[in-house]
Amino acid sequence: MNKKIAFIGLGNLGTPMAKNLIAAGYHLQVYNRTTSKAEELEQASITVCSTPAQAAEGVDFVITILSDDAVVTEIVTGADGILKTMQKGALHISMSTISPQTSEQLLAIHKEAGTSYLAAPVFGRPEAAAAKKLWVCVSGETEAKKSAEDILNAMGQGIIDFGETTGGANVVKLTGNFMIMAALETMAEAYTIAEKNGLDRQQVADFFSSTLFACPIFQNYGKFIAAKNYEPVAFKAKLGYKDARLALALTQKSEVPAPLVSLVNTRLLTQVAKGKGDSSDWIAAFGEGVSEDAGV
Amino acid sequence: MNKKIAFIGLGNLGTPMAKNLIAAGYHLQVYNRTTSKAEELEQASITVCSTPAQAAEGVDFVITILSDDAVVTEIVTGADGILKTMQKGALHISMSTISPQTSEQLLAIHKEAGTSYLAAPVFGRPEAAAAKKLWVCVSGETEAKKSAEDILNAMGQGIIDFGETTGGANVVKLTGNFMIMAALETMAEAYTIAEKNGLDRQQVADFFSSTLFACPIFQNYGKFIAAKNYEPVAFKAKLGYKDARLALALTQKSEVPAPLVSLVNTRLLTQVAKGKGDSSDWIAAFGEGVSEDAGV
Amino acid sequence: MNKKIAFIGLGNLGTPMAKNLIAAGYHLQVYNRTTSKAEELEQASITVCSTPAQAAEGVDFVITILSDDAVVTEIVTGADGILKTMQKGALHISMSTISPQTSEQLLAIHKEAGTSYLAAPVFGRPEAAAAKKLWVCVSGETEAKKSAEDILNAMGQGIIDFGETTGGANVVKLTGNFMIMAALETMAEAYTIAEKNGLDRQQVADFFSSTLFACPIFQNYGKFIAAKNYEPVAFKAKLGYKDARLALALTQKSEVPAPLVSLVNTRLLTQVAKGKGDSSDWIAAFGEGVSEDAGV
Amino acid sequence: MNKKIAFIGLGNLGTPMAKNLIAAGYHLQVYNRTTSKAEELEQASITVCSTPAQAAEGVDFVITILSDDAVVTEIVTGADGILKTMQKGALHISMSTISPQTSEQLLAIHKEAGTSYLAAPVFGRPEAAAAKKLWVCVSGETEAKKSAEDILNAMGQGIIDFGETTGGANVVKLTGNFMIMAALETMAEAYTIAEKNGLDRQQVADFFSSTLFACPIFQNYGKFIAAKNYEPVAFKAKLGYKDARLALALTQKSEVPAPLVSLVNTRLLTQVAKGKGDSSDWIAAFGEGVSEDAGV
Repeated sequence: MNKKIAFIGLGNLGTPMAKNLIAAGYHLQVYNRTTSKAEELEQASITVCSTPAQAAEGVDFVITILSDDAVVTEIVTGADGILKTMQKGALHISMSTISPQTSEQLLAIHKEAGTSYLAAPVFGRPEAAAAKKLWVCVSGETEAKKSAEDILNAMGQGIIDFGETTGGANVVKLTGNFMIMAALETMAEAYTIAEKNGLDRQQVADFFSSTLFACPIFQNYGKFIAAKNYEPVAFKAKLGYKDARLALALTQKSEVPAPLVSLVNTRLLTQVAKGKGDSSDWIAAFGEGVSEDAGV
Repeated sequence: MNKKIAFIGLGNLGTPMAKNLIAAGYHLQVYNRTTSKAEELEQASITVCSTPAQAAEGVDFVITILSDDAVVTEIVTGADGILKTMQKGALHISMSTISPQTSEQLLAIHKEAGTSYLAAPVFGRPEAAAAKKLWVCVSGETEAKKSAEDILNAMGQGIIDFGETTGGANVVKLTGNFMIMAALETMAEAYTIAEKNGLDRQQVADFFSSTLFACPIFQNYGKFIAAKNYEPVAFKAKLGYKDARLALALTQKSEVPAPLVSLVNTRLLTQVAKGKGDSSDWIAAFGEGVSEDAGV
Repeated sequence: MNKKIAFIGLGNLGTPMAKNLIAAGYHLQVYNRTTSKAEELEQASITVCSTPAQAAEGVDFVITILSDDAVVTEIVTGADGILKTMQKGALHISMSTISPQTSEQLLAIHKEAGTSYLAAPVFGRPEAAAAKKLWVCVSGETEAKKSAEDILNAMGQGIIDFGETTGGANVVKLTGNFMIMAALETMAEAYTIAEKNGLDRQQVADFFSSTLFACPIFQNYGKFIAAKNYEPVAFKAKLGYKDARLALALTQKSEVPAPLVSLVNTRLLTQVAKGKGDSSDWIAAFGEGVSEDAGV
Repeated sequence: MNKKIAFIGLGNLGTPMAKNLIAAGYHLQVYNRTTSKAEELEQASITVCSTPAQAAEGVDFVITILSDDAVVTEIVTGADGILKTMQKGALHISMSTISPQTSEQLLAIHKEAGTSYLAAPVFGRPEAAAAKKLWVCVSGETEAKKSAEDILNAMGQGIIDFGETTGGANVVKLTGNFMIMAALETMAEAYTIAEKNGLDRQQVADFFSSTLFACPIFQNYGKFIAAKNYEPVAFKAKLGYKDARLALALTQKSEVPAPLVSLVNTRLLTQVAKGKGDSSDWIAAFGEGVSEDAGV
């Protein structure tokens, strides 16, 4: 079996994912806009490419894990895009957080080109990616899911199948990111109420995240909010805002009045508008946002 | 040791709590506005009283678990209130969800009367109370906490101490109820987005509540929202709204701008204003509210 | 001078506008998807055309007053679009409520075709259009504004120049529609508070709209809200929602955290999601929305 | 006729109101916490009193124009309150912005004391008070309204009668202040959208406030928001927040889900929580609030 894969996108998530693929024995033809990012990977197991097209040459699978819809579309259809070289029957495993509409469009484009497309967005922070603890949501053609299984298992702790409609997994991903944002707003308000009433943020956070809310999101994100410490920047507020925009667009398109989606969108937009989109983590948009409004 | 306790309030939570005390060997002098509620309890272990004052006679501990601030205050200070008969040094264990301000006032009233007061609100639905799985939050004088320990342990799975300021535990309780409401709004919006985009509410709920949000609130409340089934009415929307009002008042008093507290308050107020305060569970305020707005 | 104009779009606003142009001595080459709409106009003064292209033949000015961005773009660039026949130097006066982005794109398209484009959206309900009381906001090239002046004056009571950036007038129009929505929400909440506190909605509305808020929006829209009477349907909720989406998109694109824009968007989206987008006026989205939530 | 009146409260509004009463020939027995405030008034026409009780001695009318419910109640029922000296049949004209509940309580207290009470809150900024342009809303007993007429006319441009329920005028006043806050939020968001899209705030404000929104609130308040100049501090953010709290409490008590009331309350609470309650005008809470969130 051919264990060569094209891997495009060496960001905070992509890099640990690539490492896990290498650990599983795959050889990666990597492409990243900033080439130096590839230096972190074991050099014997990779071939650094100068264009997406070059990375996609001669492989059965192309993985993309990129920042937004426009970038993914450009990587596929651009002058040096993967469609230029992907062989018939090869599969594009699209792991970025993008809109279901873009996913559907990419499917159509691939079909026309004789290639395949699978939506496979993931849940997990960089440390979860490193620990092979990502959750992978997939949707699309059964065939595609089956053929991608080993590769996806090499990066995550579980694959969840959301059906044959290609955009389905993207909807789940945007919905989940909204739920995380809502949890961040919830904790930021709750712990600030506690603080301003003379309680210890940390004790209150510990209580809730070990009882009623004893789950990864409230525990892992909650510790930053409890401590009012938003370093390091693992997921930029700017990227969080992008997801909030996609979630909001989804509610508009599918006609779901969702005031909480609006609220978390406004919170992230504020962080970005204040010029902190690049310099702060999305958790800070909520934690700092509520604290500043409360004057503490 | 005197194992006689006054127990006031046989509602959905009070009744299973009383049963656990009886199971632990206590004899209860019970008072409830609707006397017939006492019929559920083992008759040999209780003495049914016709006033709070009568219930409080000759005991070291008076437990109240009632619907709101006004009722608790009346039970303490009314013409037939417990202060009329409580013996010097006896302790009032106040387990209702009330405002920290009322708690502080009750403490002052008790101090003047030579009796003691402990704030000990609980987290848990009726089934948790029945299973002795309540979490008990306490705040107040160390002495009072120590003396109440055995009694509280007979009703819950853990006691968490939030310090010496009497209102502290009440703040934690209101904060926690806000967090639950926020989780309900989050799930109601999220699962409706999923539904209107062609996904299965139940599958999406199962995924999130077994991974990122694998915790009691998202699991236990989430199953009602996923199924759009809000029966039976375990906690009336009207009572949920009362808590939302207390939470909102808390943000105003302690000056915490908290748009999500406002949002969940509006959701519950809508349910009440529509005449469904008594006939529906608070979960329905969120689940039905979002579904109706979305036309599904 | 050639007094022949192409006029495209005979909706609730377009029809009275066309009548005023006819009254001012213009001959109109009209196009409307539903041809029968042209029967309302004086037949001697119009030529009914079967395509936009046919309407645009041989004229110096093409007016469009249509429902949304997609329709305007199709009318311009479609297979039977006006670009097919517009003569060099002719001017497209674009009076629909569309996004500034679409306006800029249309300008670029026209420039390439050797034709011109002027953004000229209007404020006013159908009765204002009939009374020649529209306010016309313009932005774009000075030359274009000058040449359109007589035509615009024949339809409105004033032309306001918002500069050379083509999208400027579109921004003003979306901003103004947001302000109207905000006034509707304000009145709906205010008069319902009055009502539920035993006051007369009408008296309260009369007081405010003749003193602090003595202006067209609070007077003309307020009378519907005061009377809880939202007939006839002058501007469909669906179209109001379209404008709310454009306004929301504008805040996202230009990075203005605007919770009130979100709130009014949610109100209109709710009306649409409930299936009342076509059957109710946008005023009803606010008036009925608040009343229903309040149970009155 | 006895033209002596007790006048209590020489704040930003009270002082010009007192001046107008003096101009109309009344002699005022004035009381103010800070005595020096009385120096602004014509000394021959006033008697400076050291307690409310002293001011209320021997007069038929006592006017109060104070900051909040607690202060008004204290002025009436306190150890040196007006009830100590008011003669039977004398009328308390209560012009402060207070809750309808407090108004009803004061009525009951006065009735028991053999004195009368009239709710007569006013609309208008200090400059309107100086120009005798206040709008006076009254509610209560017909007799009381009739006897107060001349006095009220000496301070305002019109008296509007909101019926016999004493709290009615207070509801109207709170509702109106909410409407003003909503207009402030509307303008702040609208003009910031305009600004961030390259338009001139001032031009956009001028357009709207001379056409669709040509009314005092949009004109007088709008000029501050357009210019981003919130000086001088005519009405402190802290007092605006007090009104927003009363309005919010009103929606809770009368069960009107009102998300816009929540939104404006949050805006003012944020200003206060940030420590700007005393140093900034309530207009700034909206104008600065939106600008800061938008990073401009």
